[in-house]
Amino acid sequence: MRTITALAALVLVTAIVATSRAQSPASSPATPRYDKDRALILPADYRRWILAGTSLGLSYAEGAAPEHPMFHETLIEPTAYQHFVETGEFREGTMLVLIVHGVEEGSVPSRHGQYAAAVHGVEMAVKDRARIPAGWAYYAFGDAPRAGAATAQPNTSGSCYACHSKNAARDNVFMQFYSLLSAAAPPARAR
Amino acid sequence: MRTITALAALVLVTAIVATSRAQSPASSPATPRYDKDRALILPADYRRWILAGTSLGLSYAEGAAPEHPMFHETLIEPTAYQHFVETGEFREGTMLVLIVHGVEEGSVPSRHGQYAAAVHGVEMAVKDRARIPAGWAYYAFGDAPRAGAATAQPNTSGSCYACHSKNAARDNVFMQFYSLLSAAAPPARAR
Repeated sequence: MRTITALAALVLVTAIVATSRAQSPASSPATPRYDKDRALILPADYRRWILAGTSLGLSYAEGAAPEHPMFHETLIEPTAYQHFVETGEFREGTMLVLIVHGVEEGSVPSRHGQYAAAVHGVEMAVKDRARIPAGWAYYAFGDAPRAGAATAQPNTSGSCYACHSKNAARDNVFMQFYSLLSAAAPPARAR
Repeated sequence: MRTITALAALVLVTAIVATSRAQSPASSPATPRYDKDRALILPADYRRWILAGTSLGLSYAEGAAPEHPMFHETLIEPTAYQHFVETGEFREGTMLVLIVHGVEEGSVPSRHGQYAAAVHGVEMAVKDRARIPAGWAYYAFGDAPRAGAATAQPNTSGSCYACHSKNAARDNVFMQFYSLLSAAAPPARAR
């Protein structure tokens, strides 16, 4: 009888584990990972993240427009996106990635317009007070001379943080350029 | 004894179900759904799909460039994307969505460039021989006069299919405009 009770309990526990594992694998929060030098590791699956917004030739610089405009796509890590959809907040560990593309035109059948071609750079914005006291930090992976780098140290000039902190529509995130992310905000928090 | 054996078997079955459910919920293939009139239902989660490519002002029309260029983003349903990554093939049930955005510029701190703003239209390409003998069919959800429609009948002019069939780099899909999807193809199948 004791054996039967123990086995019945095991069935129950196994079933509970089954249910919780089946429901939760996609929602356990993803967080940034660093190497032994505290460099941010580019997440392997970043190209599967959720689209926040798209731009062409966007530049914050004074003076002339960029000589070589680029397509930019900003993606957000899915579990941080889900948290944002539910709360309107970017939780600790939120990661956004910016993919910088060269511009092409003319492939058949296009007769007008431009499309994003080869990837020229990858940058990230990460909210992690355990790594940077200010919270948000900015990383460039793909720019020369480190094209294709798998790790990056944070930008230390302060210029990224200062501009984001001053101008971002919400918590250092340039929502004003991210129409899809803005549309996904909970209604009471939308702007 | 028979009870113990039965319970032990139940533990084993529950554990197997637990394992398979925990590993597979994200990979059970998503397929298109239709209403009673066989209209395609716009999937609720399409804005969480995986980015294939981005363009601005892309047009296949002869003559002058579009008077109001739009940003286009093409996304692919994640389980069809995974199948493509593994095989280089678009399986039956593959769904792509095209989001059409108006263009804005000038929000602080941008000094140059343009970004995707309000969504003006949503279109889909679906490979489903059970619905359309040719396989691929094309649907417009958001264009006037049906902006924001939740269902759509396939385009029946034949012009979408003919152009895709003639010009697509692979299986009716305009890979030539989708740099990220092209980069995700298995190496032996990349082009």
